[in-house]
Amino acid sequence: MNATPTPDIRIVAATPADIPIIHSLIRELAAFERLLDEAKATQEQLYDGLFGSRPSAEVVIARIGEDAVGFALFFHNFSTFVGKPGLYLEDLYVRQQFRGRGCGEALLRYLARLALERGCGRFEWSVLDWNQRAIDFYRALGAQPMAEWTMFRVTGDALTKLGSPS
Amino acid sequence: MNATPTPDIRIVAATPADIPIIHSLIRELAAFERLLDEAKATQEQLYDGLFGSRPSAEVVIARIGEDAVGFALFFHNFSTFVGKPGLYLEDLYVRQQFRGRGCGEALLRYLARLALERGCGRFEWSVLDWNQRAIDFYRALGAQPMAEWTMFRVTGDALTKLGSPS
Repeated sequence: MNATPTPDIRIVAATPADIPIIHSLIRELAAFERLLDEAKATQEQLYDGLFGSRPSAEVVIARIGEDAVGFALFFHNFSTFVGKPGLYLEDLYVRQQFRGRGCGEALLRYLARLALERGCGRFEWSVLDWNQRAIDFYRALGAQPMAEWTMFRVTGDALTKLGSPS
Repeated sequence: MNATPTPDIRIVAATPADIPIIHSLIRELAAFERLLDEAKATQEQLYDGLFGSRPSAEVVIARIGEDAVGFALFFHNFSTFVGKPGLYLEDLYVRQQFRGRGCGEALLRYLARLALERGCGRFEWSVLDWNQRAIDFYRALGAQPMAEWTMFRVTGDALTKLGSPS
């Protein structure tokens, strides 16, 4: 990874016109994570989530020239210990042919600055345990693993069951 | 844990008048998690986060009679794979003297129902690895550990540094 971003990388907030490219990048990321069969979101769902009446998330896109070379999707969480919102990075992805040019670092620095501007106390994301290259990269940028915590998830039929009158 | 909640447990959305009790319950939870020195949120910060101009989170309180016996604090996240918002449970706590009466399960079932009503695809939370009693409880309710993921966090000076021009 570069110590400083390549000067020609621009990070810009996504607009509705970017939905097709965001959808495509999400599917590339899912394939990289070996989870392509879980990537079921449609362009319509992404539009609703990002630009609908109650947006749940925001996206920024990394561009080199006219090429969209990567993206980050994020939203705000809240820490009851810190007493402040946090910024949670759900997805970070840089296209393979554009890696090693500082795009990932540029995206993370952009979001860290945004988190500070918005009064957030934390900037967080999750990484797959086998992605050692990413883990080394994150540690080098000052991130610490919350290794003693495990996320639990209820989804699908189990969620329907848990939410039904018992 | 009870298979069905005790009939006299009521789950109600918090109001601004509940801020002192929420603050107190958060500090009890932090002490239980052996993290009391990290629980720095003030009542003013909680008010802003829950009832300010841009709320970041919501709280429901479990009551037995007039006693506030537990609480849950949650917000929405977004899954790019599912293409839907999710419900993320940041804090779940039941006071020690009221445990074993189904309060935790009642809170989780209430939130699962709320997640379904709001069109969420997932209901998620995190647990400390040493809290085996909680882990067994969550598994019994249909939750699956996302064991291959680790959260990374940037906070404090590291966040300031990452967000500063390089």
